[in-house]
Amino acid sequence: MTNFFSSNFKLGILGGGQLGKMMLYDTRKYDIQTYVLDPNPNAPCKIACDHFQLGNLMDYETVYNFGKKVDLITFEIETVNVKALAQLEKEGKKVYPSSKTLENIQNKGKQKLFYKENKIPTANFIRFSNKAHLTEGITNNRMKLPFVWKSTQGGYDGKGVSIVKSGADLVKLPDVECIAEELVNFKNELAVIVARSPKGEIKTYPVVEMEFHPEANQVEYVICPARIEDKIAEKAVKIAEKVSKAFKHVGILAVEMFLTQNDEILVNEVAPRPHNSGHYSIEASYTNQFEQHIRAILDLPLGATESKVGGIMVNLVGAEGHTGDVVYKNIEEIMKMKGVTPHIYGKKQTRSFRKMGHVTIINENIDEARKIAEKVKNIIKVVSK
Amino acid sequence: MTNFFSSNFKLGILGGGQLGKMMLYDTRKYDIQTYVLDPNPNAPCKIACDHFQLGNLMDYETVYNFGKKVDLITFEIETVNVKALAQLEKEGKKVYPSSKTLENIQNKGKQKLFYKENKIPTANFIRFSNKAHLTEGITNNRMKLPFVWKSTQGGYDGKGVSIVKSGADLVKLPDVECIAEELVNFKNELAVIVARSPKGEIKTYPVVEMEFHPEANQVEYVICPARIEDKIAEKAVKIAEKVSKAFKHVGILAVEMFLTQNDEILVNEVAPRPHNSGHYSIEASYTNQFEQHIRAILDLPLGATESKVGGIMVNLVGAEGHTGDVVYKNIEEIMKMKGVTPHIYGKKQTRSFRKMGHVTIINENIDEARKIAEKVKNIIKVVSK
Repeated sequence: MTNFFSSNFKLGILGGGQLGKMMLYDTRKYDIQTYVLDPNPNAPCKIACDHFQLGNLMDYETVYNFGKKVDLITFEIETVNVKALAQLEKEGKKVYPSSKTLENIQNKGKQKLFYKENKIPTANFIRFSNKAHLTEGITNNRMKLPFVWKSTQGGYDGKGVSIVKSGADLVKLPDVECIAEELVNFKNELAVIVARSPKGEIKTYPVVEMEFHPEANQVEYVICPARIEDKIAEKAVKIAEKVSKAFKHVGILAVEMFLTQNDEILVNEVAPRPHNSGHYSIEASYTNQFEQHIRAILDLPLGATESKVGGIMVNLVGAEGHTGDVVYKNIEEIMKMKGVTPHIYGKKQTRSFRKMGHVTIINENIDEARKIAEKVKNIIKVVSK
Repeated sequence: MTNFFSSNFKLGILGGGQLGKMMLYDTRKYDIQTYVLDPNPNAPCKIACDHFQLGNLMDYETVYNFGKKVDLITFEIETVNVKALAQLEKEGKKVYPSSKTLENIQNKGKQKLFYKENKIPTANFIRFSNKAHLTEGITNNRMKLPFVWKSTQGGYDGKGVSIVKSGADLVKLPDVECIAEELVNFKNELAVIVARSPKGEIKTYPVVEMEFHPEANQVEYVICPARIEDKIAEKAVKIAEKVSKAFKHVGILAVEMFLTQNDEILVNEVAPRPHNSGHYSIEASYTNQFEQHIRAILDLPLGATESKVGGIMVNLVGAEGHTGDVVYKNIEEIMKMKGVTPHIYGKKQTRSFRKMGHVTIINENIDEARKIAEKVKNIIKVVSK
């Protein structure tokens, strides 16, 4: 059995952003040696890891050579070179989640096909190799307006996703491989965080409810537990576990879902790593998602996923029209409120809708937490100096 | 108003041990720039701070020059050069807790006199300038056997403290300034963590109950909340707040107390910094003691001190007779249990009774937590390879 604690064991993390930064709180807590690779010299992970390396996450040689130095590789961002990971696996290196899992998820077209093949409920869609094919498909009535357009590669946080309502919207789209998806008339967006270890132990967090900002298309509130019926929550959890098992996923998997008007659950997409929808867990859960990810990839026993208290997460995004050195205006006002904890990701510069941090609001009473969350959202402003 | 978050503000921390390491989780969370001074090149704080400086904490020049570089100075260990701190204050630098507070606490004789002067209940004692005076005092019956001997300087975790039962015990004592204190026949040892900010805001954590290891004289369990009557808890909290105010303390103050057989409360000693008796707060409290310390010294609003769930802390100390590269034997066994989180401080070498980490056990039911804590204690062993 490997000794991870205060030992020579080396964990490699691809990506050095805020997710990695929060993961490092827990590698520090366990005193696990970490190596981080990121292209940004000011990456939030730069301090707190044992070894920081500058480099391109999509470059085969860079990722391969980085991987050779460590005992186990994980990632905090999906846009990494999968071929290098596959080669490392061939040479006996542990990669969690695996290159195969990542490959199935990285391309949104492949991800959607995977759901179909594995009988996982998801909205109907058609994959198009480029814009001409897409336009042709619309013209031939293969997909009706309005629909959801998604770039198959590289989209996140509302980038690479559009609702296409008219020919004019269609014209504005970039010429890339894409999927066109039926617009789901949903009641609610839900997410379930699943942790799974190599030995197959699986634990699921309570269902969370998500509210999106109408313009920025970024999550505005994540509410745990979701205010839905128990039987719907049970159904969501079952589907999420099925997704995790189908992908043979190891680590944290965030499964985002739609709850339709008919109480059907459709899988929207997944993130094979700690996720925004699990940030509430730092304050609210028995085991936070970052510690759980570490436990899972190291094949350690998974921690309890129950909540200690209700939790709500509010994203701190840069106010529109502000660019430059960041100031968290009125942060002292929100810190006066019970159960309010700001998390500042460490980006010195703000810009419109940039994810700069988040605030967690915890309370025994979720309705009370919701009220405080709304106050928090109205008071704090992420502006430039 | 100062902007602390992702700004140029510099926080200096004297001492780079495990307390500093845990404090850095929260400076990272707030993205506050940190400078750490410690004599150990392998100090647990070395990574996760922005700037690490090797140096002697008792050296005037070192501490003074370090202090000049930062905007505000705090410490995670009391054995630092107070004169340098006083000079920095004179030159307008903020030092929290203040040099005056630290001076009153550093010397245990002074600390005890301070309690007398401020009408804070404490066990009767006599201060002796050296061993000859002590021996004379015992011979003249000024202090009766058995009594508690404490070196006035540099003692912690059972070092510099002895119970003197006989002339033979007396002979073994070192020749240093000391106090001889009446042995208190106590029911229970309690502690209260008080947070106080420069503007005088004060918040108190629930009373915790401590159980000591009989040989190592180190805390074995810290139980929150203490299983005592409400009126005794209220009395303990009042006394702790009085102590914090009397010291004009800023930051976290841990007030350790005895509960006597007659339900009297006597202050034993204080620690002017985050403390072992507050470690449970990382998992169990609305605001953990490290975040609270940061909030307090920066004069930010203090966070809620209520517990989310019951919490018990078990120290991980090196097993007797084991010296060398550390192994946390059976750590996977304890990680299977609900609400169990190990904290590994990052010391590569173990030795008998060395503080290597701690384990927190949380549960809605404190009696259930106590059962799990005992299992944890019996299962995990800190041994050498």
